[in-house]
Amino acid sequence: MMPQSHNPKKIPSNLPGQRSLISQRKHVLDLDDFSKEEILDLIENTAAMKEVLGRDIKKTPTLRGKTIVTLFFEPSTRTRASFEQAGKALSADVINLSGQNTSAEKGESLYNTALTIQATKTDFLIIRHPHSGAPYFLARHIDSHIINAGDGSHAHPTQALLDLYTIHSTLGQIKGLSVVIIGDILHSRVARSNLWGLSAMGAELTLCAPPTLMPQDFLDSSHQHKGHPFKSVRIEPDINQAIKNADVVMSLRLQTERQQSGKLPTLREYSKMYGLTSERMSLAKPGALVMHPGPMNEGVEISSDVAHGTTSVIENQVTNGVAVRMALLYKLISDTRENGQT
Amino acid sequence: MMPQSHNPKKIPSNLPGQRSLISQRKHVLDLDDFSKEEILDLIENTAAMKEVLGRDIKKTPTLRGKTIVTLFFEPSTRTRASFEQAGKALSADVINLSGQNTSAEKGESLYNTALTIQATKTDFLIIRHPHSGAPYFLARHIDSHIINAGDGSHAHPTQALLDLYTIHSTLGQIKGLSVVIIGDILHSRVARSNLWGLSAMGAELTLCAPPTLMPQDFLDSSHQHKGHPFKSVRIEPDINQAIKNADVVMSLRLQTERQQSGKLPTLREYSKMYGLTSERMSLAKPGALVMHPGPMNEGVEISSDVAHGTTSVIENQVTNGVAVRMALLYKLISDTRENGQT
Amino acid sequence: MMPQSHNPKKIPSNLPGQRSLISQRKHVLDLDDFSKEEILDLIENTAAMKEVLGRDIKKTPTLRGKTIVTLFFEPSTRTRASFEQAGKALSADVINLSGQNTSAEKGESLYNTALTIQATKTDFLIIRHPHSGAPYFLARHIDSHIINAGDGSHAHPTQALLDLYTIHSTLGQIKGLSVVIIGDILHSRVARSNLWGLSAMGAELTLCAPPTLMPQDFLDSSHQHKGHPFKSVRIEPDINQAIKNADVVMSLRLQTERQQSGKLPTLREYSKMYGLTSERMSLAKPGALVMHPGPMNEGVEISSDVAHGTTSVIENQVTNGVAVRMALLYKLISDTRENGQT
Repeated sequence: MMPQSHNPKKIPSNLPGQRSLISQRKHVLDLDDFSKEEILDLIENTAAMKEVLGRDIKKTPTLRGKTIVTLFFEPSTRTRASFEQAGKALSADVINLSGQNTSAEKGESLYNTALTIQATKTDFLIIRHPHSGAPYFLARHIDSHIINAGDGSHAHPTQALLDLYTIHSTLGQIKGLSVVIIGDILHSRVARSNLWGLSAMGAELTLCAPPTLMPQDFLDSSHQHKGHPFKSVRIEPDINQAIKNADVVMSLRLQTERQQSGKLPTLREYSKMYGLTSERMSLAKPGALVMHPGPMNEGVEISSDVAHGTTSVIENQVTNGVAVRMALLYKLISDTRENGQT
Repeated sequence: MMPQSHNPKKIPSNLPGQRSLISQRKHVLDLDDFSKEEILDLIENTAAMKEVLGRDIKKTPTLRGKTIVTLFFEPSTRTRASFEQAGKALSADVINLSGQNTSAEKGESLYNTALTIQATKTDFLIIRHPHSGAPYFLARHIDSHIINAGDGSHAHPTQALLDLYTIHSTLGQIKGLSVVIIGDILHSRVARSNLWGLSAMGAELTLCAPPTLMPQDFLDSSHQHKGHPFKSVRIEPDINQAIKNADVVMSLRLQTERQQSGKLPTLREYSKMYGLTSERMSLAKPGALVMHPGPMNEGVEISSDVAHGTTSVIENQVTNGVAVRMALLYKLISDTRENGQT
Repeated sequence: MMPQSHNPKKIPSNLPGQRSLISQRKHVLDLDDFSKEEILDLIENTAAMKEVLGRDIKKTPTLRGKTIVTLFFEPSTRTRASFEQAGKALSADVINLSGQNTSAEKGESLYNTALTIQATKTDFLIIRHPHSGAPYFLARHIDSHIINAGDGSHAHPTQALLDLYTIHSTLGQIKGLSVVIIGDILHSRVARSNLWGLSAMGAELTLCAPPTLMPQDFLDSSHQHKGHPFKSVRIEPDINQAIKNADVVMSLRLQTERQQSGKLPTLREYSKMYGLTSERMSLAKPGALVMHPGPMNEGVEISSDVAHGTTSVIENQVTNGVAVRMALLYKLISDTRENGQT
């Protein structure tokens, strides 16, 4: 760890320096390019940020004079507000743009919207977009740090990082833990980013979904060929089998619109077959964690007693979300500074 | 009064301490639990906050590092902006969430929305909700300070407090003054909270409304039985009789949607029978104050010359609204600190 | 130039003082009352503000404790965000109100909305309104500094100021330059404000538009009578003739809604006759600047290669927009202070 005194900027005294082995990062687009070392480093920084959030004055001057633009083309409370709070806790200026009021409505291309935002000398652009890949497109064309806050059904890396932090800080490790993800894997950017992150950390992963909501390459064991990035992931359509002996059970939000696409029977049937109940949780290891990215459809994918039960860490996930986003914003600026110094 | 030097936090030098006789407060849900002493104390603190707002630099560090979330399920300009400005003048971070963009839209329960907001370690949650009682529900379940910014037709305590401050600071007292409230009492959360506050302060209250827009328990003198909290309130359907010798005349906004419910004749007839005109104001005491919570339907419930006349304090109400909300935010944090110290 | 030491407020050390010859300004409604001297002074201050925006910490305490309200009755990304960023870079508190959520929706008059905003002791009110003249109306009635962020098809002075700064800072001067504005002059508040500003600075102006999109008083040379404020402006409906030997070519956004009003043939025909292509740009002087107020309809009024070509300063316009708005906010406060001292 680099000694604090080498860093010329004023930073909170309790923030650990960047590990020198970790590659310097410009953007956060997905977790597929995060190594185990980088994730562990972030987990350490997130713990320091949580300490800041627990203070009477929840604020550090780390990002004073930096600008964060949130550009959300899909409605969101928790993710947008979480980034806004993270930025403000670090003393950044945060400007919220919603797709509804942007020039995009007037027919402007995403490319030109991005150039415009860049031209305002924004340091960070946090983007949520219904099209998979939109943040990658921006990262190729503009200088600001891009953080993907969810792109289509592709990736949601900050959600996965907060999930990793939540598991690690609660159970002390991730490696070797049996983690089960249940629900609409096919359309879930949360699941997809977690696959990268949990794999990097050495978790033993099980996916459980109706066949219509499972990606094709996971069906028929076709993913078990040598080149598949998740060849050791276990596919288990039977929820009881999937949960058995799990350390962590993550229930995904069911997009109830899926019914119209014919990919779902009734909600009632889905709930009966894939709903997370206390009876089913009793098959997991004692004290197994219950997680959900929110917002929940209580009574559909998760029962109320499980959602608010003693081993549920769903609220912790939200708290950790602010801290992990603070750690990421800090990391991106720190890496840039180090780059600038070399 | 507690000497300043006992308070370990840096506060603006001109803010009076809390009176030791006043019970310590966690939430502001309605005025039914505010004593005369607590209201007088707030009035004193509001005056100090108005002094801050009159400075060249309208800002104190009182709430630095505190987070305020405004969660509005009904559209609003003045109340939301007033809270936002109050928070920023005290150096808090303010995050605005509208019902339109929240997860509530995705079917999340108010309970889970609240847990999520609490999990972000928000210090204050300012809520406006169409359902009476929503802020009470939140106060039972989450740790943040809840301030009711209007719930259904139930309560709007900060509006009533700014009304009390406006009367007190203009006329020097409230006790014994004749205060008339005219309009849609039945659906008015402003009227309801003012009933509590004005009663606590010893005003002599008259309510004036068409029978269809008056709460049932005020009709037929049925409220004059011993147990009714407002048994001494005078009900006077004739506006001329009501205004006679009044010190303060408060006109309520007419929700023009009421027409459709059959509770109103035409706007023209309402205006003719209950509109506040200069002719009618001449029946009040000389210099009697004209008040309105805004936004006004000029020409319906109030004529333009009265709204903008010399004894109108309608703009003062808005100014005082920012100051009274600053005083409340400060009070809630101060009470918590004192609690923490005992 | 007034020596810095006379100014009692802490200001960024690199901001030049106000030239004493320039009249003190309360509002920014259009450029018709800006002299060449005042514009040059603003250009100088804008350069200082750009330097602030280029720092690692893009922030000065100039407007700490001041409040800016943005009140936008038309949707906008870039202008609103630009003002918000300018205000925050100067440490002001910025409160965004959109027409959608204001009391205007509840039938409140613009007058009463303005009185309400003024009552909150707002220092600056930035207004965009679909009706020409709305900011003038407000300036007559309220005390806050009013900045017109676009009113109907009348004026958009901050856009014109950033255009002037962009030309001046890129080409070193404006006087004597041949500037061509192409497009829907009739409905363009950008063109109208630029006419005032560019004329004041001594540019040689050419307007190019289809006759249906040209103001009547510019047609048939009727504007060339002695009293017309822009009698020396050249009208040239042929785009090739207009561009010939130009130093600056400004393409205006085509409101595609105009088609429905019958004032436009097809988009394709408009594009063919008035679209800015590289072939047409080759008729201008070598290195002639390409400008556009954004958002662009690429392929309609401007081709993509021209929009993103080497002499395009379209992104610079956006960057300069933040700086020019900082300079304006600073100027209005400084002028008030000097007024207060006399």
